[in-house]
Amino acid sequence: MGQNIQYDFGMIGLGVMGSNLLLNMAGHQFAVIGFDKDVQKGQALEAASSDVSEVIKGVSTLEEMVRSLKKPRKMMMLVPAGKAVDSVIESLLPLIEQGDVVIDGGNSHYTDTLRRVTYLKPKGIHFMGMGISGGEHGARTGPSMMPGGNMEAYNQVKPILEAVAAKVDGEPCTAYMGKDAAGHYVKMVHNGIEYAMMQLISEVYDLMKRGLGLNNDELHDIFGRWNGGELQSYLIDITEDIFVQKDDQKEDNNVRLIDLILDKAGSKGTGKWTSQDAMDLPVAVPTIDTAVSFRTISGYKDERVEAAKLYKNEIKKVSLDKDTFINQLEDALYFGFIICYAQGLAMLYQASKQLGMDIPLHDVVKIWRGGCIIRSKLLNDFYKAFKENDNELPNILLDKGIADIIKSKEDSIRTVIKEAIDTNIALGGLTSALAYFDAYTTENMPTNLIQAQRDYFGAHTYQRIDMPGVFHTGWISKEEKSV
Amino acid sequence: MGQNIQYDFGMIGLGVMGSNLLLNMAGHQFAVIGFDKDVQKGQALEAASSDVSEVIKGVSTLEEMVRSLKKPRKMMMLVPAGKAVDSVIESLLPLIEQGDVVIDGGNSHYTDTLRRVTYLKPKGIHFMGMGISGGEHGARTGPSMMPGGNMEAYNQVKPILEAVAAKVDGEPCTAYMGKDAAGHYVKMVHNGIEYAMMQLISEVYDLMKRGLGLNNDELHDIFGRWNGGELQSYLIDITEDIFVQKDDQKEDNNVRLIDLILDKAGSKGTGKWTSQDAMDLPVAVPTIDTAVSFRTISGYKDERVEAAKLYKNEIKKVSLDKDTFINQLEDALYFGFIICYAQGLAMLYQASKQLGMDIPLHDVVKIWRGGCIIRSKLLNDFYKAFKENDNELPNILLDKGIADIIKSKEDSIRTVIKEAIDTNIALGGLTSALAYFDAYTTENMPTNLIQAQRDYFGAHTYQRIDMPGVFHTGWISKEEKSV
Repeated sequence: MGQNIQYDFGMIGLGVMGSNLLLNMAGHQFAVIGFDKDVQKGQALEAASSDVSEVIKGVSTLEEMVRSLKKPRKMMMLVPAGKAVDSVIESLLPLIEQGDVVIDGGNSHYTDTLRRVTYLKPKGIHFMGMGISGGEHGARTGPSMMPGGNMEAYNQVKPILEAVAAKVDGEPCTAYMGKDAAGHYVKMVHNGIEYAMMQLISEVYDLMKRGLGLNNDELHDIFGRWNGGELQSYLIDITEDIFVQKDDQKEDNNVRLIDLILDKAGSKGTGKWTSQDAMDLPVAVPTIDTAVSFRTISGYKDERVEAAKLYKNEIKKVSLDKDTFINQLEDALYFGFIICYAQGLAMLYQASKQLGMDIPLHDVVKIWRGGCIIRSKLLNDFYKAFKENDNELPNILLDKGIADIIKSKEDSIRTVIKEAIDTNIALGGLTSALAYFDAYTTENMPTNLIQAQRDYFGAHTYQRIDMPGVFHTGWISKEEKSV
Repeated sequence: MGQNIQYDFGMIGLGVMGSNLLLNMAGHQFAVIGFDKDVQKGQALEAASSDVSEVIKGVSTLEEMVRSLKKPRKMMMLVPAGKAVDSVIESLLPLIEQGDVVIDGGNSHYTDTLRRVTYLKPKGIHFMGMGISGGEHGARTGPSMMPGGNMEAYNQVKPILEAVAAKVDGEPCTAYMGKDAAGHYVKMVHNGIEYAMMQLISEVYDLMKRGLGLNNDELHDIFGRWNGGELQSYLIDITEDIFVQKDDQKEDNNVRLIDLILDKAGSKGTGKWTSQDAMDLPVAVPTIDTAVSFRTISGYKDERVEAAKLYKNEIKKVSLDKDTFINQLEDALYFGFIICYAQGLAMLYQASKQLGMDIPLHDVVKIWRGGCIIRSKLLNDFYKAFKENDNELPNILLDKGIADIIKSKEDSIRTVIKEAIDTNIALGGLTSALAYFDAYTTENMPTNLIQAQRDYFGAHTYQRIDMPGVFHTGWISKEEKSV
């Protein structure tokens, strides 16, 4: 490799994600350089690139990396969200100059990104927040990338991003997501949807495992079949794989790994952020909320063991015909998936307007079709819906085509829930998806009673259906009436 | 009234709540003085006190109020949460001195209260955050009051608070709630529980109104009967009243007011805070989350009208025998109420430990028995449970006595949900309460699959059931297998 070569792109942080992204770029004929304080990581990167024809270099000082970049410099950091990002920015500031583009490719909270954009703007530095989804494997072979920020800066990195992104029908799974922190906002909501979809899959798994008594091979077959149909998606795909994974700790163990994994779910916080930020807008994302709270309940292992002894609620078998029930589960999950996307996309619709981010929703669903964790066949339907509605779709449930799909699955989810209630299996996600649908599609909710109660005890006022204005009533209590 | 009298207590802000609390104190032989910039409010306060034997005075400068208070001074502000509280503090600082007690009786967020406590401590000012529940009427006749902060300061205001608070079995509905911002924290969770209970009542109302076709007189009778039984509570009590309230806008209108109220719910934010802060701890409060998100959905009136036309999901009638179903609804609501309290109290249990507030849970449920919006007969059972478990009860569902109650209602809530699924009525609250129960009382959740998925796509690691440690597996995909 030449000593004085000028590199196209720099990476700060050579963890698995950063290294894989650089290898991906190098494979697309970009000259790339990566920095990590850990010398071994830079060496490992160079070693891993033996099968890559292009130039790739690992260095252990930030100065060397910055000095080696073509101007205006284009670089990305992949470091843990939080203080590390600010620390990298401060280290970069003496080294970079006006016009340079610095991308934060981690899962930073959008308010942090907004603060950093504002901080760097007067210095002429283009700071971009970009969500990346696809995991380690995706980073190497083609992730979905959600960049937001300044359009001028985006155009500079666009060729590289489009080259390395996943492709669907020849189109790259990356696009400009909007102003300021839009990229990180979109990624946050992506993860919220991911939480909700995973919660639904886990419930359907529970219904088949404990409710129908299916074994891992049967589950493997069913998820495989589902992945060949309407439910085709990354999460269904990997679930199929999971059921046949052997235990890698005890060689002589015939037990499948899935049955040895503790049922306490971890989280990195993006699902929680989605719920919390949705409440601030406010937008209703009850199925995402449920996914967040059920991960929390999973953490109460000791209390659950104690409660299980106290309540002795055995899991009962599903009484419906097995094959019929499995087909209904497929429909119910499909219905549930649509509701997860509906909640997340409705959140983006509102956030885009309220936070002035101008998020192009048709591009969001377009670039989610490949590379990312929530990619699915369904996103093609949503892409079509947003195009047909000229991007003005506050909720995908309002699209005629989506409504037809939902209607065809509605009976199944109702049957599944009715049947499952008696099994004692917890169905937080599926029931919240149906309740959201039932509330969203009714002209009259019983919330008039809540307004009456609020006005009764707190004089919070209410509106009327028959005249404009804001009203307060001196509600008459039994005591007053009896006087 | 004497000109040089020294007053026992001062109130900053003479809105309805502030004035009513002062009138309440005056009625208990305390000399009280209130300040409001609006001269008319001070005059109104004095005028309202004609039937009160004790001294009460309204003034229009803060100086005059502070000057007229006995030392160490005891005063409370009842102003809108947020900047107004900080502004009052700054105005007070030149006027008050070391040892004075300043209470914020509004719905401030606990982090603001914590900041103010910390700010005023070095100045020797005792700042207390106190939740007050009971609405206007409660303030006048006996609210539930939740003071937190410095114990020394609490002891100074204790006699006044105990005198004016609601009484249950002769015991005042006020007690020391713990350190720092504990008072506001407890009140926040109180309001979260209130949101969830109101959501459940609205669902049961919907099932009886649209599902059974009952009229307002029948609903009035049923809620009246329920209030005479196990469900006895303030919210059921006022709901009984609400159904017979006449329209006060159009005299000639035979329509009941409840049917003229728009179904868009407002909120002041304390429910939202409860959900958001619970996620930070984290503690699962899915039924409170649902109440928050369903108020949000109620606000999508235009979208709901459009969706109703698109989906044409008519409400179907309940097919079960009417009287049987009403009895099951009573049980289901009772089950649901317990779950609302369980979630809120579990949150206080965790918050108390994690935020170092030392909240005495038995005192919390004790003082919620009267005066406040969520008062109910059930709180006596919880009070007993906390006493029997020596205050160490991470979740009331783990108490043997509560378990017996829950078990006796479980069949009913399952029947109600199974029946209601086909009516197309949204049951977000009831289903989330049951799902929470089913998840909490099972030893094995299907979350092992979520952990497998997370490790598969993001190398997030997992724990095992058969050995300690943290594991990551190189999951084998179909593609790799076929190579």
